[in-house]
Amino acid sequence: MIRFEDRDGFQAALATLPGNDATAIDAAAARQASLTKPAGSLGRLEEIALFMAGWQSREYPRADRIRAAIFAGNHGVSARGVSAFPASVTAQMVANFQSGGAAINALAGACGADLVIVPLSLEQPTADICEAPAMTEAECLESLNAGAAVVPEDCDLLFAGEMGIANTTPAAALCLHAFGGEAQDWTGRGTGIDEVALARKTEAVRVALALHASHCTDAFETLRRLGGREIAAMAGAILAARMMRVPVLLDGFICGAAIAPLARDNPAITQHCLAAHCSAEAGHARLLEKLGLNPLLHLGMRLGEGSGAAVAAQLIRSALAAHAHMATFAQAAVAGAL
Amino acid sequence: MIRFEDRDGFQAALATLPGNDATAIDAAAARQASLTKPAGSLGRLEEIALFMAGWQSREYPRADRIRAAIFAGNHGVSARGVSAFPASVTAQMVANFQSGGAAINALAGACGADLVIVPLSLEQPTADICEAPAMTEAECLESLNAGAAVVPEDCDLLFAGEMGIANTTPAAALCLHAFGGEAQDWTGRGTGIDEVALARKTEAVRVALALHASHCTDAFETLRRLGGREIAAMAGAILAARMMRVPVLLDGFICGAAIAPLARDNPAITQHCLAAHCSAEAGHARLLEKLGLNPLLHLGMRLGEGSGAAVAAQLIRSALAAHAHMATFAQAAVAGAL
Repeated sequence: MIRFEDRDGFQAALATLPGNDATAIDAAAARQASLTKPAGSLGRLEEIALFMAGWQSREYPRADRIRAAIFAGNHGVSARGVSAFPASVTAQMVANFQSGGAAINALAGACGADLVIVPLSLEQPTADICEAPAMTEAECLESLNAGAAVVPEDCDLLFAGEMGIANTTPAAALCLHAFGGEAQDWTGRGTGIDEVALARKTEAVRVALALHASHCTDAFETLRRLGGREIAAMAGAILAARMMRVPVLLDGFICGAAIAPLARDNPAITQHCLAAHCSAEAGHARLLEKLGLNPLLHLGMRLGEGSGAAVAAQLIRSALAAHAHMATFAQAAVAGAL
Repeated sequence: MIRFEDRDGFQAALATLPGNDATAIDAAAARQASLTKPAGSLGRLEEIALFMAGWQSREYPRADRIRAAIFAGNHGVSARGVSAFPASVTAQMVANFQSGGAAINALAGACGADLVIVPLSLEQPTADICEAPAMTEAECLESLNAGAAVVPEDCDLLFAGEMGIANTTPAAALCLHAFGGEAQDWTGRGTGIDEVALARKTEAVRVALALHASHCTDAFETLRRLGGREIAAMAGAILAARMMRVPVLLDGFICGAAIAPLARDNPAITQHCLAAHCSAEAGHARLLEKLGLNPLLHLGMRLGEGSGAAVAAQLIRSALAAHAHMATFAQAAVAGAL
């Protein structure tokens, strides 16, 4: 299991990311070319098979053991009226996850993922990012390690999701810091706020950036100042997965925002990631573009909880089923192209 | 089981399509509004749940019994060099379907569909549509009824796929007749032809239209003259499903083209259909727009065989799992929006 010792350990891991296995990719590509279909006719399903082969170092990659980890945290900035829901909903939804009643329970079940729920000090919201760093160094490290701890040794695919009332506000701040632009470029309606709340939220993002930007010199410090516990945990899980060469399905806006500061330090962090979907949250399409990721799904989802990743996980399973089980032209005695 | 007695019977069925169940849709919508998520946050998954509720007349629609029917036919026009593969591949691929080695076998397995393979007089290609009507009236009726026969009484969802070397040529002709434009608007690379073959194929579409268009006075006659056996069978299956109020997932370009003449006679034919995906075949995006359908997936697939529908069927399952299994705000004691 991966554990980051301290800020330097986290940054060192981010600076020395392992690559994928070109030999396995070549073997998978040769197999794809031999299967009974016109070359390239399965489109992105073929890309997925090669991607999974490269990170798993297998000509026949698997999606049998899918780990879904949902992190929850509370945010001091919620007191500014930036969400449509009260902060108490975070803990209520964690209870709902634990009793099996949330969307992610149904969707993880549908894709066969093994779901773990990780509430992070819900009774202790982070500090309001408009006034102070969200977390102490110890709290940030603890959150990163809570994320790293969910990646099992023997894991075919990881996805991380989140629950945290008001967390699109720190997510927007992280995107604004990583990729520039204006606060309104990254600030959206989250769970469904009105114009007045959107103006308050946009202003909160602007104020937080003005306060912290000059101190955000690396990914750790950026997550500590502008992030939140569940956001840092997702970043820790995704970096740990990379260190273990476990492929990752990124969920929505907040999940992408969690690795935005990592991508600023090392753009290669996205290489082991597939973007599950483009959500309806305003900044997500722009974020995916900045991360260089082409989402698999466009379904207008905007729930979080890993819900988009759970739906996309079924595409991974389909892609790998075709890759593993199709006959070759030779096996099936089918003539090739003229 | 549905059986069309003759051309008039087919046209009469097309003229009197049953509608969906507004009461079931209202009940499903009320349930969606009560579930533990921000309103609308599951995006198209919510639309899918309501769509399925309406056609199944159930507040809790199901996707347990999915019928996948793959029809195969041969085409006289293939002798004009409009495909990258020889016509012999149609029968070879049918054998591959029957022994379980094709993409659709793997993908139908992944979505839990019950797969039936229906070869249609493969040893007897249709006439070359550049010279004569593709089929006699008896052949066309027989093909339509071969399609209607695959829809079981107790079916939660149907999708139809096809195999037929050269069949994007009649498909393009059907689209051109139904929706106008130029032959090149609808003629694409199919399994992967070069520029020279594409020019031949576009010319074949133009010649076929010039020969038949003035005689194509209704859907039956259009399918008979410009279609093919597997194309008419898909049209028959989709119309029969409507008569039985079974929802349909449309696969790719050829599947959409099969109902283009039906949509010309009665645009309501698409109401019980979801478009599984937008394929990489050149005319498909335009066809979906003309049919008024918004595809669920954009994965660059272009294989046919029902492969895109099989992948999209997993989205249906996810949508219905969330609809059926999520807790309501009241059940989970989660606070609503402020």
